[in-house]
This record gives sequence, structure tokens and C-alpha cells, in this order.
Amino acid sequence: MKLPALLRRGRRLRCLGIDDGPFERGSRRDVLVVGAIYSAGQFEGLLTTRVRQDGANATARLIEMIAGSKFAPQLHLVLLDGLTLGGFNVVDLPALAAAVGLPCAAVMRRRPDMARIARALANLPRGAARLATLERAGPVHRAGGIYYQCAGVEPDLAGRAIRANVVTGAVPECLRGAHLIAAGVVTGQSGRRA
Amino acid sequence: MKLPALLRRGRRLRCLGIDDGPFERGSRRDVLVVGAIYSAGQFEGLLTTRVRQDGANATARLIEMIAGSKFAPQLHLVLLDGLTLGGFNVVDLPALAAAVGLPCAAVMRRRPDMARIARALANLPRGAARLATLERAGPVHRAGGIYYQCAGVEPDLAGRAIRANVVTGAVPECLRGAHLIAAGVVTGQSGRRA
Repeated sequence: MKLPALLRRGRRLRCLGIDDGPFERGSRRDVLVVGAIYSAGQFEGLLTTRVRQDGANATARLIEMIAGSKFAPQLHLVLLDGLTLGGFNVVDLPALAAAVGLPCAAVMRRRPDMARIARALANLPRGAARLATLERAGPVHRAGGIYYQCAGVEPDLAGRAIRANVVTGAVPECLRGAHLIAAGVVTGQSGRRA
Repeated sequence: MKLPALLRRGRRLRCLGIDDGPFERGSRRDVLVVGAIYSAGQFEGLLTTRVRQDGANATARLIEMIAGSKFAPQLHLVLLDGLTLGGFNVVDLPALAAAVGLPCAAVMRRRPDMARIARALANLPRGAARLATLERAGPVHRAGGIYYQCAGVEPDLAGRAIRANVVTGAVPECLRGAHLIAAGVVTGQSGRRA
């Protein structure tokens, strides 16, 4: 069943939330990326991959991770914690959505400061290409206290789907889980207090 | 508040579920161990450590992982998926419970075949010491479809606390989460279907 019908009928969404683990700046090593699958607030499965810090392989690695998994046919929505992983490894949101055939959204707790991001990218190799990839994600939308960019889905629908995944606080449950797991695996202890 | 009062008042328990990741037999490498913290069915935090495959450091590593974490003062119960991690690295359940000051239980879906385990341990270095450690966990109890051994807590109370952590199926939620995370991190994809 497609997202509009699921939301209309109040059916539970199976959502993949993606976040990266902490890493040391400047090391140019691979950074852990985890994808936590949640359905109706319950944790159901985990995918992992690695992306190069400040590299350019985030989109390809996410496509491999999602499309290559047995969970792919059961997913309704992919949420990212922002548009970059492992520093400035930028995700091409429309390319990701097209390749995995799923609505994808990058979620942020604050409106992103595009001028500041553009300046940071300009200092990196292939800065113009990174910025072009970032801009392909299109305009920033807002739903409640959450900002997002989306692809493969109407913005209003994406906003409703994101909010349907919030259980406690402002962050969708699948992103909360992905954040805790990535931090816990890399540092031995997840960052938030229980 | 202590476990009996929590259960009596129907208060939610904050439970740490511990499981190991998959590993290749015979490699004698370190094996990932994850501790997933759940409260009222919701995932709240992650701890990780590593134990030597078929080694003897599981108890020490778990004590470090738990006692050294900021979550320790908030935990009510520790559940292990069986008494061994990373093959035959046996956990000393009473020593763990005493060191972390918490009720601890090893949970199994079937009644363990102690004669078979004893034969397997006899083939390993320090087999007699491993078996003695295993036996310190005491008699196997049953609550519903779950078997368990426990320390630092009355068996009946442990059984009620274990069952209070079951949300779906027969396995306490914190152990289900720990299992999915450990498998997903090690293999790139957790074992169960979503």
C-alpha cells in the first residue's frame, strides 16, 4: 500500500531512520552509518554501512544498503538526519528516492543555514559538485517543530508521515533509535541519558 | 525504587538486555556484545563492549560496561541471552549481580542441556573452571515459555520482571533489541524479517 493510503487509513508506517556515528574530524576514515527500522514505534531491524568521512560515496552506499536488504519491499519511508553523513559526504536525495523507489526525507531540528553550509563546502575538494548535490534536495519545509527536505513524495504528505513517526519529543522514533545505536556502537555508550 | 515495589505498583522497569553478535567459530577474535536499554518497551540507550571468543573475560567486560556507564544508577534489571557470550565465554551470574548491584538473569527459550554443555566445556582450556562458573548460576526456573537462571533477586520476582518486559512474542523486548542490533552491526543486516 502506498503512503497516502496508509496515512489516510491510519495504518502503521514502516520507516527506516538513518544516522551516522561520531567520528574524529580530519581522519578521512570510514564512518559508521546505521539504519534503524521502526514500525508503530517498535524497533524491528537494523542495517549498517560505512561512508568515507568528507567523501562522496554516501548516496551509493545508502542505495546499496537499502536496495540490497530483505527489508526493502516492506519499507514505506526513509528518513535521514540531515543531508550529509560523515561530515560533508552529501546525499543526493532525489537520486536516492529514485533508486530505492521510496519517499525519502532529510529531517532537521533547525532551519539549515545554507550560506554557512555553502562556505564550508567551498573549502573541500569538489566543493561546487557537493553544493549542487545539496541543492538538488530542493526547498526546506516545516512540519511542527521539524524542518525537512524531501524527494519521491509530496512535501505535505512527507510532513504528515514524519510527524506520524514521532512518539516522544520532536524527533521521529526511527531517527532517535538510529542516533542512539550509532553512538553506542562507536563510543561504547549512547549519548543521551536514559 | 527496588524491583518488588516497582512490580507491585505496576511501575515501568528500565531493563538492560545483553546479547552477542554473530562470529566465526575458531577465530579466537573479539566478539561484539551489545546492551540495549529499554523502558516500557521503548529503546532508550545502547552500551557496547567486546569479549574474547571462547575466552574467560565476559564477566569482567560486562561489569566494566555496566558499572562504567551513566545509565547504571537508572537500571532495575539486567537480562542476558543465556549464560555464555562469544561461544563459551561463561558469565559468572552471582559475581555480575554483586558487582553491579542489580538483579541479573540469564534467559533461555529452551531448558538448557547441562550434560551437553559440560561435554563441550570439557574440550576447552580450563574446562572445569568454566563449568564451575556456569554452575554458580544455580537452578533453572521457568516463567511461561521462558527458562531462566538468576542472581541478586528472588526467582519468582525475576520471573515476573522478565515477563513484564515481553511486548511481542516470548522474548523480553530488551533482548530482542540487543539481538537485532548486534546482528545488524556485525553483518550489515539484522537476522529477523521486519
